[in-house]
Amino acid sequence: MIALIGGTGLEGMGLALRLAQAGERIIIGSRSEARAREAADRVKARLPQADVRGAENAAAAREADVIVVTVPYEGHQETLELLRDHIAAKVVIDAVVPLELGRGRVSVLPVEEGSAAQQAQRLLPRARVAAAFQHINAERLADLDAFLDADVVVCGDDPDAKRAAMALAEKIGGVRALDGGGLANARYLEQTTALLVVLNRIHKARSSIRFTGI
Amino acid sequence: MIALIGGTGLEGMGLALRLAQAGERIIIGSRSEARAREAADRVKARLPQADVRGAENAAAAREADVIVVTVPYEGHQETLELLRDHIAAKVVIDAVVPLELGRGRVSVLPVEEGSAAQQAQRLLPRARVAAAFQHINAERLADLDAFLDADVVVCGDDPDAKRAAMALAEKIGGVRALDGGGLANARYLEQTTALLVVLNRIHKARSSIRFTGI
Repeated sequence: MIALIGGTGLEGMGLALRLAQAGERIIIGSRSEARAREAADRVKARLPQADVRGAENAAAAREADVIVVTVPYEGHQETLELLRDHIAAKVVIDAVVPLELGRGRVSVLPVEEGSAAQQAQRLLPRARVAAAFQHINAERLADLDAFLDADVVVCGDDPDAKRAAMALAEKIGGVRALDGGGLANARYLEQTTALLVVLNRIHKARSSIRFTGI
Repeated sequence: MIALIGGTGLEGMGLALRLAQAGERIIIGSRSEARAREAADRVKARLPQADVRGAENAAAAREADVIVVTVPYEGHQETLELLRDHIAAKVVIDAVVPLELGRGRVSVLPVEEGSAAQQAQRLLPRARVAAAFQHINAERLADLDAFLDADVVVCGDDPDAKRAAMALAEKIGGVRALDGGGLANARYLEQTTALLVVLNRIHKARSSIRFTGI
């Protein structure tokens, strides 16, 4: 069972749809149980066979085996602190990018630990953290009619977490998972997302990345 | 006429080969005129019809219309300071990435101006600077038998410089140029190169990037 923490946003909803479509059991988590249930209903309206329900974040984290974090960066630290005991030693896949989007300007916020994923590891010392899904366009992910033509680079220090994240990514049609080395490399995933956002704004696109030659 | 400053390295040689193949007139620049001439001879050995010669960096910068900078980052500042008067108000295409490659570790060096390309603009206030070619794999570039399957994102504040860089990139077979906005975005190009280097090491590959959905 996979929990999508902060799963009512576009990224979380997109992952819920794609992973439910692939047959995974999903709990969408939110600070508000009502909004989590509404989000689950929206997934079921699109995919009637989906095994998906909504719950408050803590309940979602408690019940799931794998925790995918898709909160906005502003809520990253606080959310993970609140969930620490529920997550315990589980696999955590952090998809959060510390971006600040201003008018005509995209900034990567400085993160003391080096990256949001490394911050997650510090806040959840027992958990096994991997970074993934930073480069998948959330709008394309949430649009089941859109073909995803994307590589998902996975960084992590724990082999099980990395394997779990790579396997999950490859359940999504059109996605290839690539080993991106240790968790310290997550900063480069997050920085590269800034480039994607810049290109999307200029080209009015919903772009993802393919690494050619691998 | 295009000068490749620091053009005897792999990146510079690759650009010399590909641009000469496309019919451009090339001067390979080096601190050593002898090494520049040797490099030009190597291009001509591979492409007998190439219009290419070697010169000391200052002479190359003086004679060319467009200056492409491919020095290692350690020599970036000093080289540009020495060439300032020769470059004057010409178009400069900076391909330099401030990377430090250690054993098992790739680091992006902090650049006070934000990126190597912005450093070039500060050092060459009259020049019209664009950032480009950070994501093209130098080994594949220098291997004329290799198909380049790559996007080149170009950042710059001067429209002429950007247009020149994009036109040059698209003279290389298999390359698409993409507008990447202002020069301040060059930092994201340079950071993304770190991700490419990480992936190349892990996968023993010579990877480039394609942005899908654009």
